[in-house]
Amino acid sequence: MHASVCHGCGGIDVHSHVVPENFPRHLGARLPPEWPSMAPAHACHRHVMISGKVYRTVSDACWSTTRRLQDLPGMGLDLQVISPMPELLSYWMDAADAHQLLRYTNDVMAAMVDEGGGRIAALGAVPLQDLDLAVAELEYVVGTLGFAGVEVGSNINGVPIGAPRFDPFFEACEALGAAVFVHALRPAGMDRLVGPAPLQQVLGYPGDVGLAAASVITGGLIGRRPRLRIAFSHGGGTLASLLPRLQQGWAVFPALKESIDVAPADQARRLFYDTLVFDTATLRHLVASFGADQLMVGTDYPFNFHDRTPVQRIEAAGFDADTAAALVYRNAGRFLGLTTKETTP
Amino acid sequence: MHASVCHGCGGIDVHSHVVPENFPRHLGARLPPEWPSMAPAHACHRHVMISGKVYRTVSDACWSTTRRLQDLPGMGLDLQVISPMPELLSYWMDAADAHQLLRYTNDVMAAMVDEGGGRIAALGAVPLQDLDLAVAELEYVVGTLGFAGVEVGSNINGVPIGAPRFDPFFEACEALGAAVFVHALRPAGMDRLVGPAPLQQVLGYPGDVGLAAASVITGGLIGRRPRLRIAFSHGGGTLASLLPRLQQGWAVFPALKESIDVAPADQARRLFYDTLVFDTATLRHLVASFGADQLMVGTDYPFNFHDRTPVQRIEAAGFDADTAAALVYRNAGRFLGLTTKETTP
Repeated sequence: MHASVCHGCGGIDVHSHVVPENFPRHLGARLPPEWPSMAPAHACHRHVMISGKVYRTVSDACWSTTRRLQDLPGMGLDLQVISPMPELLSYWMDAADAHQLLRYTNDVMAAMVDEGGGRIAALGAVPLQDLDLAVAELEYVVGTLGFAGVEVGSNINGVPIGAPRFDPFFEACEALGAAVFVHALRPAGMDRLVGPAPLQQVLGYPGDVGLAAASVITGGLIGRRPRLRIAFSHGGGTLASLLPRLQQGWAVFPALKESIDVAPADQARRLFYDTLVFDTATLRHLVASFGADQLMVGTDYPFNFHDRTPVQRIEAAGFDADTAAALVYRNAGRFLGLTTKETTP
Repeated sequence: MHASVCHGCGGIDVHSHVVPENFPRHLGARLPPEWPSMAPAHACHRHVMISGKVYRTVSDACWSTTRRLQDLPGMGLDLQVISPMPELLSYWMDAADAHQLLRYTNDVMAAMVDEGGGRIAALGAVPLQDLDLAVAELEYVVGTLGFAGVEVGSNINGVPIGAPRFDPFFEACEALGAAVFVHALRPAGMDRLVGPAPLQQVLGYPGDVGLAAASVITGGLIGRRPRLRIAFSHGGGTLASLLPRLQQGWAVFPALKESIDVAPADQARRLFYDTLVFDTATLRHLVASFGADQLMVGTDYPFNFHDRTPVQRIEAAGFDADTAAALVYRNAGRFLGLTTKETTP
């Protein structure tokens, strides 16, 4: 699929986002209030309008493959994996409406992959509020479009991604070899924030993705789906802070020991995480907590709050060369299921 | 107050809990449904009954000073700071009802301090659902009972402790020199947990106390109350994971830069935290993140899920002798406002 990419030359970013240049007209009787549209903004920018308000003002890097390819070398990257801006996942719409929007977005991303000449890969979107539709769209993005996998929310309308109800979806992901990237979305704890709106992304997101990763561990997903490749955004969020306490709680509380087969600390070393933590000491702590084979570059490009120096940050952390190579590209290759020189004889 | 304690000999535990042996009868017309009572359990144990159900089964170590004094040396501790089991804080009751229960609990703790011969200190409870009553009870526990300060919840009926509405209370704490210990309570994110009930304590608590600490930072409490001494339970919970992202968000988002005067990473080094993280690597990461002068032993004694080897854990972390002494007793002495050989000429 992307086997021609030179994985020895630079990094793979598994966490970058797309907003289409335009949104399609809704087809159907009842326009969902959250159906997005675009409004003009300053040069090279557009306002994403949702529910009659500016949700976010974004630059043309959100949809321009040319611009992305220009920006890659400066970040030390060879391959960029694109996924939708999470708010577009639309789990809160009727499934059929969401499916319209997601199919359009998936097709936009497929065109970007084609334009990318092997330097853009994609994680598609599926309407997880309807498991049958989600599996069908998974088959479309992986089988027809050739995507590496999918992006999913840390919760689906408040239900954490590790809840047993999503088992049929993960069964299909495992069977298809689809990588699953879990991104923070509409987080818990919003009523615990004191300050302006960006705190949702800044503080709410890592908390929600941390609880999502914990739900995968306490729910036993990897035990049931041992070949599943699943990754968590923002360095796994708060999971690194939660994990030692979860490990100790598992040893102390009989109810946890009975319901969790494999030690949480061991399970955590079977999940993937991006490096998007903005701090080398924290990055070293994540490698110590989760293992050198589980972390991969993530940037949140092209949003304002993105890591502009992801590879330099890894190089500055003082890892040995093999660990650095693992973080910069090798783990991502394994997560994405890419055929590389490292993994084929 | 506790100036006679030998602080060179052993550790100070700032995080241990009390449940009274019996609860008083409610005085008043309407019995609050959450008013606690005791029911018999197996030898040396009682069931704490709340709302007609067993809330927790606890041992006599919860109320027996003799038992506590016997257990202290084995944990490497000289001084134990007691505070109520957090669920007793009763913010959800009418303030007058809560005040009845908290006054009783504070008086029970005062008797334990008297029995402790200088080896027990206390943090009292105040009904923060009513700021005037809370300040009055603060004056009682600090002025009349001689307590070092108070324990408060990470949130008061869902409002994080860093919200501006609590300013009058913190103004009084600063004026009285009362230490404030923030403990996780009725956490956000309960609908994100997949598994049995203990996950509330195991995963919910650290998330809530992390957001509470973040709310103190984003709300600017220390800027307004520079002499306030405030500490967070469970190693600050998820704050260590949140802090680098908050620091970066503060640099990137104008709305955060405008609303937060002092860099979050610098503010975090002015708060106190306990060491209750059950992991030496995490403990080292907390010292690197928050500074060697801000961490103090916390155990959650005598509950099942408590750290039985808090001082050994610090010794095993490989800190230099000065840092170890700071964590084992010196920082706690500063937090509690104790007069020690280190702080007076």
